[in-house]
Amino acid sequence: MNTVVVGGGVIGLATAWRALRHGVTVTVIDPAPATKASHASAGMLPPSSEQIDGVNDLLRLCLASRDLYPSFVAELEEFAPAGFRRDGVLDAAFDEDALSKLDHQQSFRESLGIRSERLTPEECAKLQPAFAPTLGGLLGPDDGAVDPRTLNAALLTAIEALGGTVIRRQAIRVAHHTVTLDNGDAVPFDRVVLAAGCWTHHIGGLPEDAIPEIRPVKGQILRLHSEPPLLGVTARALSKGASLYLVPRLDGELVIGATYEQRGYDETVTADGTRDLLARAAEVIPGVGALRFAEISAGLRPASPDELPLIGPTAVPDVYLATGHFRMGVQLAPITADAMAAYLTDTTPHASALPFTPLRMGRAA
Amino acid sequence: MNTVVVGGGVIGLATAWRALRHGVTVTVIDPAPATKASHASAGMLPPSSEQIDGVNDLLRLCLASRDLYPSFVAELEEFAPAGFRRDGVLDAAFDEDALSKLDHQQSFRESLGIRSERLTPEECAKLQPAFAPTLGGLLGPDDGAVDPRTLNAALLTAIEALGGTVIRRQAIRVAHHTVTLDNGDAVPFDRVVLAAGCWTHHIGGLPEDAIPEIRPVKGQILRLHSEPPLLGVTARALSKGASLYLVPRLDGELVIGATYEQRGYDETVTADGTRDLLARAAEVIPGVGALRFAEISAGLRPASPDELPLIGPTAVPDVYLATGHFRMGVQLAPITADAMAAYLTDTTPHASALPFTPLRMGRAA
Repeated sequence: MNTVVVGGGVIGLATAWRALRHGVTVTVIDPAPATKASHASAGMLPPSSEQIDGVNDLLRLCLASRDLYPSFVAELEEFAPAGFRRDGVLDAAFDEDALSKLDHQQSFRESLGIRSERLTPEECAKLQPAFAPTLGGLLGPDDGAVDPRTLNAALLTAIEALGGTVIRRQAIRVAHHTVTLDNGDAVPFDRVVLAAGCWTHHIGGLPEDAIPEIRPVKGQILRLHSEPPLLGVTARALSKGASLYLVPRLDGELVIGATYEQRGYDETVTADGTRDLLARAAEVIPGVGALRFAEISAGLRPASPDELPLIGPTAVPDVYLATGHFRMGVQLAPITADAMAAYLTDTTPHASALPFTPLRMGRAA
Repeated sequence: MNTVVVGGGVIGLATAWRALRHGVTVTVIDPAPATKASHASAGMLPPSSEQIDGVNDLLRLCLASRDLYPSFVAELEEFAPAGFRRDGVLDAAFDEDALSKLDHQQSFRESLGIRSERLTPEECAKLQPAFAPTLGGLLGPDDGAVDPRTLNAALLTAIEALGGTVIRRQAIRVAHHTVTLDNGDAVPFDRVVLAAGCWTHHIGGLPEDAIPEIRPVKGQILRLHSEPPLLGVTARALSKGASLYLVPRLDGELVIGATYEQRGYDETVTADGTRDLLARAAEVIPGVGALRFAEISAGLRPASPDELPLIGPTAVPDVYLATGHFRMGVQLAPITADAMAAYLTDTTPHASALPFTPLRMGRAA
């Protein structure tokens, strides 16, 4: 089977790699692979999130992807380092409201059998000495983070090592088992996976309403740097009803994110976005101001109409979707890629992925 | 005469160019020309400054350089665009203290015969609609700004067009009419100009105390971007006892500076420096937050022991200095270059440059 994957973000690349592993012939089409939302992403891999508590299908999908991550990374690291660390994620509460969220998170995780340790303010200070005083914390000792830039680079290496093709052009149209590129070239396929994030529904040639609208939700994200690293452990700082991601890398990079902005396809990094992230970081890490300013970047999170991922076949024969992962593309890459590889090899995907069939959209319409 | 200029910032490059124009054979030595303080600089060319009011020698030097700028640029633009604009500089007062400074500036400029127009708050708003409400302004209609990056590029082009040589190496030692480079090469000279900013006194081989210590004063500076440009006219926003430079370029760049930091040779751009400039800009330009964040950079202003420029011969035969310009390197480049060219051709420099002889340091010591 000759499969084309349109879109070289983390979802498209992971799908291509897993499909290649299962013997599928794969071509990835992207004008600039690994440069959009998953390039900006912090790559935090939390055990669960208040946002998905109650959305049971999504929770199951997250837990399945969490379980897959170590083996996904181990297999990928046969090709190149993947930038994965699983040395804990600390949720730290900076106000009373956040503290009560931790209570809730703790019982939620316990109900799922996810290891979780409640920390006193003193224990938080010991674990993360650079933090301002907290009211307490919740540590997920088995959780962690991945550097999406390293991960994407490893996926590209693996794809090429397994004989996959990457065409650095824009896909304009999909019709008659052919993808037409921006230079007029035609790439034939048996099956196509559309994984172009919030640009997926802009691909032409398909019947109207075949692809739901994927709304862009802009996130700006900051990268600072210090040697040695200022933070010892990946963290979420909870205060004022919001959470700030703080993802330290071993090389001294500290990723701080993110904003949520509804501005269409605007990917501009702004003075306000930068200032907002710097101010929020300074509230929870008093010494952060002395760190080197390394980068401000922006990505567009792809949000489907119900804000849930679209993974699987569409109503159009041989046209599949792998998009709409919103905040969770990096987190859900392993389960999405495995489910897509199953669809592409006519085997049954993991049960957790089944509710995310794009065909649910047709049902709703 | 075979002259070597050590240092390829705006002072070294301008000196090299003017010397070449006068028939001197010139070699510039710099590992990375045009990448340090004058690369970071905003390039504002104000008529005068409260900082130099009272320092009459420096004031005369500034006025001489101001008078030279148009012809300096016109000659240089025979080779390449210099990025000069002379369409006014607005000093805007955002508090009562700043307003009284404008009163003082106005009478000061009038006493010097510098054109200057007092503006009402309404006139300020008309001239600079993006500003928050002011208490009034002072416009220097004959003043302006230069883009130091464009200027330096033009100087490099002119130097090479006139047969000058640029050696991209580090100068380690100056002795016996020879500059020794970091690769061991020796570059002989009849005369040498040391114009290496705050690194000038690190050059080895010279008698102790031949070169005064040039202290680095770090400045961080922000570059935002919008199309069309947010500001119409170059400005200084005066508030809270400080002034913020706001230099718009025709391509939509808005340069905002700068911090003053005593941190030795640290050129790190920091979270705090970025945040400080963003916050100060937002106070005077309410809409600035929506602009694209383009760059934060840092430079080290070279401050001599008396914080005044060093222009001319030292006590060591055939060794000259052109450094110590502190905040004013770009502003004073034309007069410094002309004075140095005069020294190098054994003619009399402009009278305004004479008090800045490095020999004054020996007298003080």
